Amino acid sequence: MNPLAVLTQTLGELGAMPAAANEGAAQTLLGLFWLLLGAKLGEEVLRRLGQPAVVGELIGGFVVGPYALGLVTPGDVAIAFAELGVVVLLFTVGLEVRTDELFAVGRPAILTALIAMILPIVAGFALATVAGEDTMASVFVALALAATSIGITSRVLRDMGVLGAKFARVVIGAALVDDILALVLIGLASGAAEGDLSATTVLIGVAGAGLVLLGFAAARRAKGLPRHVFTWPLFADTPLVPAVLLMLATALLAIWIGLAAIIGAFVIGLIIAETEAAEEVQRDFRPLASVFTPFFFAVTGAELNLAAVFDSEIALFVVALVVIGVITKAVGGILGAWEIGRWQAATVGFGMVPRGEVGIVVANLALAAEVVDDSLFAAIVVAVLLTTVIAPYLLSFSIPRAIREAGDTDTASDESGVAAAGP
Amino acid sequence: MNPLAVLTQTLGELGAMPAAANEGAAQTLLGLFWLLLGAKLGEEVLRRLGQPAVVGELIGGFVVGPYALGLVTPGDVAIAFAELGVVVLLFTVGLEVRTDELFAVGRPAILTALIAMILPIVAGFALATVAGEDTMASVFVALALAATSIGITSRVLRDMGVLGAKFARVVIGAALVDDILALVLIGLASGAAEGDLSATTVLIGVAGAGLVLLGFAAARRAKGLPRHVFTWPLFADTPLVPAVLLMLATALLAIWIGLAAIIGAFVIGLIIAETEAAEEVQRDFRPLASVFTPFFFAVTGAELNLAAVFDSEIALFVVALVVIGVITKAVGGILGAWEIGRWQAATVGFGMVPRGEVGIVVANLALAAEVVDDSLFAAIVVAVLLTTVIAPYLLSFSIPRAIREAGDTDTASDESGVAAAGP
Repeated sequence: MNPLAVLTQTLGELGAMPAAANEGAAQTLLGLFWLLLGAKLGEEVLRRLGQPAVVGELIGGFVVGPYALGLVTPGDVAIAFAELGVVVLLFTVGLEVRTDELFAVGRPAILTALIAMILPIVAGFALATVAGEDTMASVFVALALAATSIGITSRVLRDMGVLGAKFARVVIGAALVDDILALVLIGLASGAAEGDLSATTVLIGVAGAGLVLLGFAAARRAKGLPRHVFTWPLFADTPLVPAVLLMLATALLAIWIGLAAIIGAFVIGLIIAETEAAEEVQRDFRPLASVFTPFFFAVTGAELNLAAVFDSEIALFVVALVVIGVITKAVGGILGAWEIGRWQAATVGFGMVPRGEVGIVVANLALAAEVVDDSLFAAIVVAVLLTTVIAPYLLSFSIPRAIREAGDTDTASDESGVAAAGP
Repeated sequence: MNPLAVLTQTLGELGAMPAAANEGAAQTLLGLFWLLLGAKLGEEVLRRLGQPAVVGELIGGFVVGPYALGLVTPGDVAIAFAELGVVVLLFTVGLEVRTDELFAVGRPAILTALIAMILPIVAGFALATVAGEDTMASVFVALALAATSIGITSRVLRDMGVLGAKFARVVIGAALVDDILALVLIGLASGAAEGDLSATTVLIGVAGAGLVLLGFAAARRAKGLPRHVFTWPLFADTPLVPAVLLMLATALLAIWIGLAAIIGAFVIGLIIAETEAAEEVQRDFRPLASVFTPFFFAVTGAELNLAAVFDSEIALFVVALVVIGVITKAVGGILGAWEIGRWQAATVGFGMVPRGEVGIVVANLALAAEVVDDSLFAAIVVAVLLTTVIAPYLLSFSIPRAIREAGDTDTASDESGVAAAGP
């Protein structure tokens, strides 16, 4: 045996040996490394091709994931990083939104949420029924198409530097209302699936809405709250850790009520934005967002079983779901937010196209209640993920037109349409 | 049934319902929340009592952990956060150390590492043999007492603002050498336990040492490497993400060789410190360190089964292990680093008292090889953790005296003893 072979072999044995207790840690670090590397390489390639960066992170995740190179299969830790990634993202979006400006777009936001929820429910139910699914299955297909996930849209809005635009506030407001409506509908449908339809579900929706409104009220009262509220008495040096604790606590509160974790994180972001600690928290969260957020998109990409779409009879159904999913949200946005201008309204609609984790939760509920079979489950999940991949393209098409239409992305005034040139 | 009861009950049901798919996520977020809250509250209380902050994080973790309030039992995700916490900590310590200054203290560092490894091995072996353990068990007890974990000492040195002092560099250098020696010894002992003692193990030690030296050489050559090395071609905006990727990659490389992950992270930190991106990376890593590092100490605290020490016959043996563990390292430091001054040498010794994860790895290896039984295993683990809790107290006692002795904490010159007053 030559010395090199001995060295290599013993290295392997030894490497596996003191690592015995460390093996889990090494696996974990390796998984995180591949996901982050995939996301960043994908982002860079897509950026150079003039494509949305976030799509690169999705593709990068897909490439390193189990359905392509198989370098990593997201486990508990990667999924936790992904969850924290989208929670941190929405928290920082909340930090950049002014509550007053959100209220100013209340009417178009609520209208959009309602229309962009009713249309996909009707169309999704019709499609599934035509495809031969029974009533309960069709209800869940419809619901999976109804719920909006704001994560990817927030990211595109931030990447394009238009979080301050009026249409951005309408999308975010509509997504909030959408989540509360979805909460009620999912509760009703789950009750029906288990033969336990209860009027109190509506009450829960009211409670959820009440809590979000309470958050808004708190944000208004938090105006100018001094920095030391965050640094006293617990937090000797920086408002960062208290802000992280508040973010985790409100995300958990939201989950407990039945809302998405990101809603809680967004609302507490709104509140902190009004305090004197806002700037410091914003600055300290930037590195956290840079490190955590890619995991959300990379893990989503890694879960995308593209092969399933190509080599089975569900392909046509998936395509139909995606087409309906896109058109109904776009029309919902255009009808609901028409008052703010044509392209801006279209952007609002496109911004609601991604279904993300909410759609996947619905699919999981339906599977657990044995309302859908494995193949329909896969079809819903893939369709949901495809809406997430498509949305950045729609947005990067419509946003420049929306900006030109608005004339000024920073205006908080109520006039829509052509305005004075930006600063 | 009154409306409130209905609401509460349905909230509970609903909360558990859409969360079905989210339950894992919620559990995870809740665990992270408790650990971070415990760590920060503990830190704040201890700080107000004039005690080392890091002990507060250990105690906070213990209090929320399974052996006290039971609010959280660290799972895979919390342990991954802890591992990343200490990796990030040592990476940022590397960022603050200049390679040249580390080389300048080579002699006392190597002397200290040797003496502070031989003494606890001899004393540990003798104690275990006297206590009636067989030869192999005594070997592993001795090894668990030999290995130094630099995590907690780095933290105390940073908290006290003395990372730039000469004694700090001696501790860090000695810990590096210590880890490489421990690697060889653990390999030999494991081989002996399995009846497979091989000379190639020594070769592995040489390879490990070679790699660390290669890292030093790279750090010297990296001097003035321009920032765009980190931002081109992959990394469009900031050197943060490339730095995170490099940190993960070198931590993995270190684990693969058989070294601790933190050694890899520290060495790449040294290298990046010499480049033009250093300042930016340092600034962006500060929030990451604030959020991740507390998990390392909180999880360590949560694993501290204090009850086991009090209510069994192992208590006396544990106390003896701790006493020997402290005295041998202290004497090792004083003898090995005497040339830099009495109190500074004592600080070096105290800095090597914590055994941390390396000692726990040794205990796990011994348990897996059936060389020690459950009760001896528990004794080793508790003693190892107690050395970690005691060290900050020893350090906060000796460091002010060491600083007074040195007269100047920032000097990088070779003169020890009384020097000019600091800036």
